[in-house]
Amino acid sequence: MGQLDPRPIGVFDSGVGGLTVLRALRSRFRGESMVYLGDTARVPYGTKSAEVVTRYSLRNAEFLVSRDVKLLVVACNTASSVALPALRSRLSIPVVGVIEPGARAAARVSRTGEIGVVGTPGTIASGAYQRALAGERPGARIHVQACPLFVPLAEEGWVQGDVPRQVARTYLAGMRKAGIDTLVLGCTHYPLLRGVLAEELGPAVTLVDSAEATADEVEHLLSGGAVGSSGTGPGGLRLYVTDLPDRIPELSARFLGERVSGAEQVDL
Amino acid sequence: MGQLDPRPIGVFDSGVGGLTVLRALRSRFRGESMVYLGDTARVPYGTKSAEVVTRYSLRNAEFLVSRDVKLLVVACNTASSVALPALRSRLSIPVVGVIEPGARAAARVSRTGEIGVVGTPGTIASGAYQRALAGERPGARIHVQACPLFVPLAEEGWVQGDVPRQVARTYLAGMRKAGIDTLVLGCTHYPLLRGVLAEELGPAVTLVDSAEATADEVEHLLSGGAVGSSGTGPGGLRLYVTDLPDRIPELSARFLGERVSGAEQVDL
Repeated sequence: MGQLDPRPIGVFDSGVGGLTVLRALRSRFRGESMVYLGDTARVPYGTKSAEVVTRYSLRNAEFLVSRDVKLLVVACNTASSVALPALRSRLSIPVVGVIEPGARAAARVSRTGEIGVVGTPGTIASGAYQRALAGERPGARIHVQACPLFVPLAEEGWVQGDVPRQVARTYLAGMRKAGIDTLVLGCTHYPLLRGVLAEELGPAVTLVDSAEATADEVEHLLSGGAVGSSGTGPGGLRLYVTDLPDRIPELSARFLGERVSGAEQVDL
Repeated sequence: MGQLDPRPIGVFDSGVGGLTVLRALRSRFRGESMVYLGDTARVPYGTKSAEVVTRYSLRNAEFLVSRDVKLLVVACNTASSVALPALRSRLSIPVVGVIEPGARAAARVSRTGEIGVVGTPGTIASGAYQRALAGERPGARIHVQACPLFVPLAEEGWVQGDVPRQVARTYLAGMRKAGIDTLVLGCTHYPLLRGVLAEELGPAVTLVDSAEATADEVEHLLSGGAVGSSGTGPGGLRLYVTDLPDRIPELSARFLGERVSGAEQVDL
């Protein structure tokens, strides 16, 4: 065990999707306090340019640093895919993204090396998963597909039934044909569609959720002493959003698995 | 005819959907120059709060005023539904939204007074169509439905086939049951889904596209002399966007019906 550090872990996302990552962190590190920022006024990042996403990411990180976080988790695939170098060069605390852990987990579990990645247009266009997977597993064949309709489906709560099934079938047709054995869910909203995706791809395809893989990475930092752990005892949780927090109770129940009664609105 | 005024007409929208309104204006007023601003870095407005949408709308309007426009068309239902009072009190030029013209047209064409309105969550929650229709046609029964999946379907180009048909069927079930005879397309993206919507509702239901109704309103201002007309001769067109203009050629072909080779990026 390294030294104790009671400061919170900071997590940001373009909106509420990152709550699936927060959920994995909360269930794994019960003693840690956490501060979450959802940039709900500027969501989605997935259709915006790298330049704009980097600018917003730096602003989000500065806010969390002002909240005295000891570690920053970028719980947004789009931001992780384009803004990590800028964040790491500006911040003095460790920065964990969701891409590298997800790619590492996929490279490990794939038997055949035929690996699929689904994500937002921004994430797929960045090539970040393709690069990370090629680095982790040279020789793997990577099949990518942008799935812009998955986010609104998840936010609408349309996660089973005919519509999501047909949308999934359309997006995944090429990968099924290519015979992938592993699919990376390269967007924090997609775990909500896990049931439909699993049904569509069948039991021979392993789904990799980067939320769990990211929690592994954080565990590595905490247990290795790179970042101090909190004591025991239940860690606190604060949520901040940049637009009105009206839908937070409903959305936190769906994405975080805890119904949070409110969030504080901040103007960044 | 009033006096001549060669200054351009300014049009803004949260993104590219307003190009359907620009298209109606361009085909109606061939002599007028037009300047279009799509706030593509902050799209969509439909899921954001009234406060945030008003702030962005004022910034967009100031930019267009700096481009010396003689008339402002707010080609975004969400912005029209919440920001018109603020815009009208700050600007000295006439401001036309898309809600009032659409409501007026629907009130006129409905035989039975059973009127449906589809729009983004922001537009529907604002109650703007409900108020405008009640004012135009007291006693009408208004049936509203937020349809957040229609925008990503239109932007993806998924405007026919099983997926949009099933999405439309789900959203429109209540209105069909209520027996509407008129449906207002209360979002500038929705005219792209007109085929599917018409098929779903059948020939007895009239679809009202606010783009055409808004062009009527502009015609009224120009012919009544409230705003001076340009001379004849083809009017110029300038497009500005707040994010990278990469997809403008493709999206302008789809939404505007003219393939515009590029747009200038501005940071607002």
